[in-house]
Amino acid sequence: MALSVEKTSSGREYKVKDLSQADFGRLEIELAEVEMPGLMACRAEFGPSQPFKGARISGSLHMTIQTAVLIETLTALGAEVRWCSCNIFSTQDHAAAAIARDSAAVFAWKGETLEEYWWCTERCLDWGVGGGPDLIVDDGGDATLLIHEGVKAEEEFEKSGKVPDPESTDNAEFKIVLTIIRDGLKSDPCKYRKMKERLVGVSEETTTGVKRLYQMQETGALLFPAINVNDSVTKSKFDNLYGCRHSLPDGLMRATDVMIAGKVAVVCGYGDVGKGCAAALKQAGARVIVTEIDPICALQALMEGLQVLTLEDVVSEADIFVTTTGNKDIIMVDHMRKMKNNAIVCNIGHFDNEIDMLGLETYPGVKRITIKPQTDRWVFPETNTGIIVLAEGRLMNLGCATGHPSFVMSCSFTNQVIAQLELWKEKNTGKYEKKVYVLPKHLDEKVAALHLGKLGARLTKLSKSQADYISVPVEGPYKPAHYRY
Amino acid sequence: MALSVEKTSSGREYKVKDLSQADFGRLEIELAEVEMPGLMACRAEFGPSQPFKGARISGSLHMTIQTAVLIETLTALGAEVRWCSCNIFSTQDHAAAAIARDSAAVFAWKGETLEEYWWCTERCLDWGVGGGPDLIVDDGGDATLLIHEGVKAEEEFEKSGKVPDPESTDNAEFKIVLTIIRDGLKSDPCKYRKMKERLVGVSEETTTGVKRLYQMQETGALLFPAINVNDSVTKSKFDNLYGCRHSLPDGLMRATDVMIAGKVAVVCGYGDVGKGCAAALKQAGARVIVTEIDPICALQALMEGLQVLTLEDVVSEADIFVTTTGNKDIIMVDHMRKMKNNAIVCNIGHFDNEIDMLGLETYPGVKRITIKPQTDRWVFPETNTGIIVLAEGRLMNLGCATGHPSFVMSCSFTNQVIAQLELWKEKNTGKYEKKVYVLPKHLDEKVAALHLGKLGARLTKLSKSQADYISVPVEGPYKPAHYRY
Amino acid sequence: MALSVEKTSSGREYKVKDLSQADFGRLEIELAEVEMPGLMACRAEFGPSQPFKGARISGSLHMTIQTAVLIETLTALGAEVRWCSCNIFSTQDHAAAAIARDSAAVFAWKGETLEEYWWCTERCLDWGVGGGPDLIVDDGGDATLLIHEGVKAEEEFEKSGKVPDPESTDNAEFKIVLTIIRDGLKSDPCKYRKMKERLVGVSEETTTGVKRLYQMQETGALLFPAINVNDSVTKSKFDNLYGCRHSLPDGLMRATDVMIAGKVAVVCGYGDVGKGCAAALKQAGARVIVTEIDPICALQALMEGLQVLTLEDVVSEADIFVTTTGNKDIIMVDHMRKMKNNAIVCNIGHFDNEIDMLGLETYPGVKRITIKPQTDRWVFPETNTGIIVLAEGRLMNLGCATGHPSFVMSCSFTNQVIAQLELWKEKNTGKYEKKVYVLPKHLDEKVAALHLGKLGARLTKLSKSQADYISVPVEGPYKPAHYRY
Amino acid sequence: MALSVEKTSSGREYKVKDLSQADFGRLEIELAEVEMPGLMACRAEFGPSQPFKGARISGSLHMTIQTAVLIETLTALGAEVRWCSCNIFSTQDHAAAAIARDSAAVFAWKGETLEEYWWCTERCLDWGVGGGPDLIVDDGGDATLLIHEGVKAEEEFEKSGKVPDPESTDNAEFKIVLTIIRDGLKSDPCKYRKMKERLVGVSEETTTGVKRLYQMQETGALLFPAINVNDSVTKSKFDNLYGCRHSLPDGLMRATDVMIAGKVAVVCGYGDVGKGCAAALKQAGARVIVTEIDPICALQALMEGLQVLTLEDVVSEADIFVTTTGNKDIIMVDHMRKMKNNAIVCNIGHFDNEIDMLGLETYPGVKRITIKPQTDRWVFPETNTGIIVLAEGRLMNLGCATGHPSFVMSCSFTNQVIAQLELWKEKNTGKYEKKVYVLPKHLDEKVAALHLGKLGARLTKLSKSQADYISVPVEGPYKPAHYRY
Repeated sequence: MALSVEKTSSGREYKVKDLSQADFGRLEIELAEVEMPGLMACRAEFGPSQPFKGARISGSLHMTIQTAVLIETLTALGAEVRWCSCNIFSTQDHAAAAIARDSAAVFAWKGETLEEYWWCTERCLDWGVGGGPDLIVDDGGDATLLIHEGVKAEEEFEKSGKVPDPESTDNAEFKIVLTIIRDGLKSDPCKYRKMKERLVGVSEETTTGVKRLYQMQETGALLFPAINVNDSVTKSKFDNLYGCRHSLPDGLMRATDVMIAGKVAVVCGYGDVGKGCAAALKQAGARVIVTEIDPICALQALMEGLQVLTLEDVVSEADIFVTTTGNKDIIMVDHMRKMKNNAIVCNIGHFDNEIDMLGLETYPGVKRITIKPQTDRWVFPETNTGIIVLAEGRLMNLGCATGHPSFVMSCSFTNQVIAQLELWKEKNTGKYEKKVYVLPKHLDEKVAALHLGKLGARLTKLSKSQADYISVPVEGPYKPAHYRY
Repeated sequence: MALSVEKTSSGREYKVKDLSQADFGRLEIELAEVEMPGLMACRAEFGPSQPFKGARISGSLHMTIQTAVLIETLTALGAEVRWCSCNIFSTQDHAAAAIARDSAAVFAWKGETLEEYWWCTERCLDWGVGGGPDLIVDDGGDATLLIHEGVKAEEEFEKSGKVPDPESTDNAEFKIVLTIIRDGLKSDPCKYRKMKERLVGVSEETTTGVKRLYQMQETGALLFPAINVNDSVTKSKFDNLYGCRHSLPDGLMRATDVMIAGKVAVVCGYGDVGKGCAAALKQAGARVIVTEIDPICALQALMEGLQVLTLEDVVSEADIFVTTTGNKDIIMVDHMRKMKNNAIVCNIGHFDNEIDMLGLETYPGVKRITIKPQTDRWVFPETNTGIIVLAEGRLMNLGCATGHPSFVMSCSFTNQVIAQLELWKEKNTGKYEKKVYVLPKHLDEKVAALHLGKLGARLTKLSKSQADYISVPVEGPYKPAHYRY
Repeated sequence: MALSVEKTSSGREYKVKDLSQADFGRLEIELAEVEMPGLMACRAEFGPSQPFKGARISGSLHMTIQTAVLIETLTALGAEVRWCSCNIFSTQDHAAAAIARDSAAVFAWKGETLEEYWWCTERCLDWGVGGGPDLIVDDGGDATLLIHEGVKAEEEFEKSGKVPDPESTDNAEFKIVLTIIRDGLKSDPCKYRKMKERLVGVSEETTTGVKRLYQMQETGALLFPAINVNDSVTKSKFDNLYGCRHSLPDGLMRATDVMIAGKVAVVCGYGDVGKGCAAALKQAGARVIVTEIDPICALQALMEGLQVLTLEDVVSEADIFVTTTGNKDIIMVDHMRKMKNNAIVCNIGHFDNEIDMLGLETYPGVKRITIKPQTDRWVFPETNTGIIVLAEGRLMNLGCATGHPSFVMSCSFTNQVIAQLELWKEKNTGKYEKKVYVLPKHLDEKVAALHLGKLGARLTKLSKSQADYISVPVEGPYKPAHYRY
Repeated sequence: MALSVEKTSSGREYKVKDLSQADFGRLEIELAEVEMPGLMACRAEFGPSQPFKGARISGSLHMTIQTAVLIETLTALGAEVRWCSCNIFSTQDHAAAAIARDSAAVFAWKGETLEEYWWCTERCLDWGVGGGPDLIVDDGGDATLLIHEGVKAEEEFEKSGKVPDPESTDNAEFKIVLTIIRDGLKSDPCKYRKMKERLVGVSEETTTGVKRLYQMQETGALLFPAINVNDSVTKSKFDNLYGCRHSLPDGLMRATDVMIAGKVAVVCGYGDVGKGCAAALKQAGARVIVTEIDPICALQALMEGLQVLTLEDVVSEADIFVTTTGNKDIIMVDHMRKMKNNAIVCNIGHFDNEIDMLGLETYPGVKRITIKPQTDRWVFPETNTGIIVLAEGRLMNLGCATGHPSFVMSCSFTNQVIAQLELWKEKNTGKYEKKVYVLPKHLDEKVAALHLGKLGARLTKLSKSQADYISVPVEGPYKPAHYRY
């Protein structure tokens, strides 16, 4: 796509695939609202007081139908919003169209190149006059990364006149980040520092992004407060677990129509995401084998009747491989060469380096046959057999299906709204330093409570004497911080 | 679509949506072949001897990728083939394109009108010179029905000069059948009787069609031998059960993206199809309630922890309704009016009369909002709340997704190939009368055996003394006819 | 025990372990009655008319609490009853005591020797004056066998003067049968023929006994009508399946307290019993491997995510082995020698020849350590490692636990009552020849219906037009005879 | 039993039911050792260096076979041990006998009165000369409670001369505690303070005891360091969850033989214990309803397809009730009166006040019928219907069955050994203050690792670059402290 910003009749900027899909997007957004009671309750509770009045929020998070409901919750509470996707394949174009037309500045489409991806991220952070956003909603930490790298480069440039050198890295994506920053330095050598100044904080959605934040906190590099939404119980124990239990088979079925029953499936990693994936595959009738580095998670897998082996043990007998580790170099091209014909290889972790796509793409004589978008068969020259790789090694549930369903995303996104409200409310109180925080348990419990009615549940009320007996307030929170659920 | 037959460069007739999708269809057919070991084994075993040499086979069965592999197995064994779909929504257009271009005469596309549907069926049966097909592969019995009704009308016409009166029926679809036959009488008053003369027999795929055949057998109306493929164990206990366990959630997810976990789901009917549906919903985290008329099936549901109630008991509290009964008038418009907003209503039984679509469509003031093809929201005027109906009440797994996966269809279709071979081989021996037959158990076991290797299974061999002890041959069959599996 | 018949104060014969346990037995019988709605409904429906007035019923069927409720249902309907167990370990002594004291002549205790077992069987059939029973309730066919062998011997003796030679067989148990018959010939050379004359028929409970009956029917050796209760759907698809799903882990836990989660379990045979066992083990967290000879059952196992291998493939890596085949020579001593230390070996099939107990007992240098009754550790001299064998290779759920729970036995036993009623009602009509019959489907459905209320289920009623549409009577039966459930 | 201490020939004190069961206990201990790889690995690793040389350990923890292996691990590491049970029904008498004969001073038998229970606890803590133990292994905190109450009373007595007044409390059990302390004051008014002086610390096994410890820590009342073993991941996420998943159905089956399939079961509380119970009941075919106060746990239940209601909603329709809350007053006599005839009521939480036993016992006209030990039917006078209460409202898995299986207890108890080692090693370093500690994660991971080999698992090894990428050491620990598993 030509990388030029377009404008709606009302003057809002956007860049999406096809604005004419806005009506379709709107219909699905309306369906999703019924499935997202937490977000709708936020609108009801906070809408009247417009707490985000005056706040600029930039979001880098899969531009799906569910995210559309999040965005319109933020705007319903008074915010101005700009948005991009945090993954090149995860945008639902009709969702982007509806938001662009009706609610917020959107820069996102399904199937971006990496250059387009980072252009969108930059657009999302660029609020023109007055610098950047007040708040960031991040997923995986790319928006946060860009600002941190930008500030670092600007400081170095000011000090030594040196600009970032894209050739200094092998990483194709980081090359682009450095290029963008380098090019930006020319026009405005204070751009990212101005952003930093204005920024009240970020709320981060996912394990991978959170890991980055804690690393920055540890080295003192973190430039603004961060709320770790991922580790709200109502996020990581729901979205990561039940979301993936839903969307992994969805992605497999849409991409390949393969029968899961009877197959041997390998799940690499048995964290929350891996647990959800393994449960889905087992329930669909697969025989599931788990690979793990952590003996505790391994023992959990065993207690569920799953076999725990190494990838090498099973690489040539399994039919389906799923990576869920958040680590890198899990399935290498040397593994792929040993797989059965038409073995399916996919990743449901955040980044695409769990599967050695580079090794695959550059394997001498390898042939890529695109069955349909995000479903490729790669044929090895020696054996003339092939493997099927989903979503080019990226998040298969968003690349090949529509990601997690609305209800579970409502839990995650209600945490986001609460985190953003908290950061904004405390912007001048000094409550939040340049550290990583999790939401207090009573808010976590509140998020859950907002989702019970939709499912017809009725909670039991603690009596005062019972509450005293277990030393908790009648109205909660009910568990100590270390409780694992 | 304009209802005119087209021809390939080689002169083969067809009518499909878009022949340019043939390459895509071919790629998916090749993937499916790897997943259909039974059909590929038939090609290997019977291909060289060309047993279908000279046979004309007409098929009325969902024109999917899997069916494409069936068709090309029939042609690989020497048959000439014409094909149509047995459901207006079940064709996969790329599959139809590939077959039309490469292998057989196809008349099918996704989203036919009822008129188009019966036109396709007629085309499929019309072999031009020399009358109709030698053999029929039927699914639901529409091709068989057309011939039987045609013969009846011709005989009546010969006797009394009376032609069928489409106005004599309320059933919209049967009106069209009568119209077609009436119009055909003018050009050729012996057409269906000539077909009947030539016909060696039919093999029927599904419960609904089989029920029709037994009814005709009982009244003596059956015009040719029929093999009941549905009641091969390797069909009804696999395709119906495990196929639906796979394709029901697939259809739900593709059509609505709804989170199944936490929802209340009602499955009407707990036969093989209902068992598969209920298992899938339960495993996905729904609370499943079953409705049943048969106390035995009801007790089975209870033993699996499912609640058994009437539809009236739960109509206003459930989120998802699935009909699987093979009966009619299961969910009426009066039920639908009482459902929760955005309750999902769908049918995975063969015909669309399980759900009262007529009642819904003609409900005063009802409003239909098409979210996307095969996903409609119907809004009732009194409450302004709506329900979501999938695939217009027809087979939702084929209308909203791609039907059953290849592996399980390989079981069903290997039975079809074997049934067709059997009918053709015995065409002159009188072995098969105008009755309904099931395949002998050793063939059923053979079908299963052909599918074990792909899944890495290793069978145990009976010793002679063990075989004697349980009074079975060493090489099977291993069970009495009444065994239920 | 000294083999002498005792008498209650009312003059009823019995031989049980300890009559003082009768109160305890009575309490548990009363609990069981609440769980056996089918039997209680029979008492309510038929009790007043006393249909069994004048009938002598002999039963050879595990003398458990559940059987006690069956016996007292027979007596409540007017029958006189004598009873023995059909397995040396399956008697619950308190049940036997309560029945002996209150209701019927019982000859049974837990831990009979084989000699005692057959003595009990003989007592059960011996009604003194006037020959034997009118009706037999059999389980496994031992009572039926004894009569058939007795008649054969008497005829041979009459013809040639030859008496049976116990030394003519290697089978330890059959030796005893021949001895009993031989010894009986002296006192009454017409005893079994008189029994045969009087006998109206037998109703047989289990797969193994049914197999014997069909073999006799085939060779024309069957001496009286038989009703195959096992193949009522409400028996084989409930008792065999759900009964074992309950009682297999119960037996394992009571005998060994072993944690099932995480273990590798091998289930030999995947019929109804095997399916129930595999489901229980999988759900408890074991990794289950199935061995099968039948490709259809093997494919079913695969569809449930179970691995299918041969015993040889897994003998040295599995922790738990269960035989469910109804065949012989499944786990041989050579397998046992290769097992891991403390591997558990048990049988839930009817006879003890699934496990090679003879091979084990006679293995040179093997050492038996009885942990507790019915739980033995056998140590091999070469490795000094041992395996744990339950219930000496006999029915482990009855030997080590209390067998199937009341509710599911109520289904089975209601079939028994109905079968006995049917035989008795038709005793003079010639309806039943010397063949094997199954109960008609409407009675099968009735049995199920009697069990729904207890579980709070509500059946849907078919309308007349729906019934016509699927060609069944409104009140059932609802399925064709070949339907598999 | 007469409360007098007995002595073995070697002079070790004990009081058990029947020393002649020691051989049977020894056989089962030997079986358990094979299932407890963590404990056996401790013996192998630490046995040679005798780290507990000179340490006196008192344990108050269910005196089962598994605990026997724990005790003998402590003695194998050099400790002297005295033991009592922490529940009146949980002792396995053969285990107690074997330990008393072979390894340690034991005061425990199945079916203690409350007076006997506290006498045993006192014996366990009384090491004669030199005061009390160096270390305590506690479960539920009763040993810790006795010392704290003792010290409090002694200080009050010294200060004011006042002795504790048993009449000051309504709680029957606490009356006994006060009596014991009061009576002890006469003979030695410094007894508990001497104990306190010597004590290095306690390691606490279970949720309930841990809750007490944190309360004492908060008020500053804690007299010595405590290690919270319960919240090791390898304890609470294994023993509590998978242990109960195993032992709840075991207890139900042994106590009542009731068929779980088809029943409606209510699980009060959906923490780790509740999750295990609900999973077991669901898998056994029950329809499970959960009651919860915590919205997060409630939402988890819903995601697993369980219904969440209040007890009042379902009290009259359910068949089985299980309390798992750790709270009090969960099922009151007023609930019980409304239950169905023969509804089963049981508790798997630590204390017996979850079920209102006092209310039941004192209900006017109620009748108690003991079916067998730990299985009582309570009949209400108004309705003449009864409910079945297991283990008098106490821990039903230990009262009615044998508690958790060895393998999962090996995880818990390996944590205990490690905790005891840690306390003892650091006794003079001041590392542990009078606070509650959890074990560091690398020890938790070590416990898990010790249990993988037995189940045939193979861990994946992290490469250095992977470890750096996710910022963990190659050898672990692999997760942040807040990780929930």
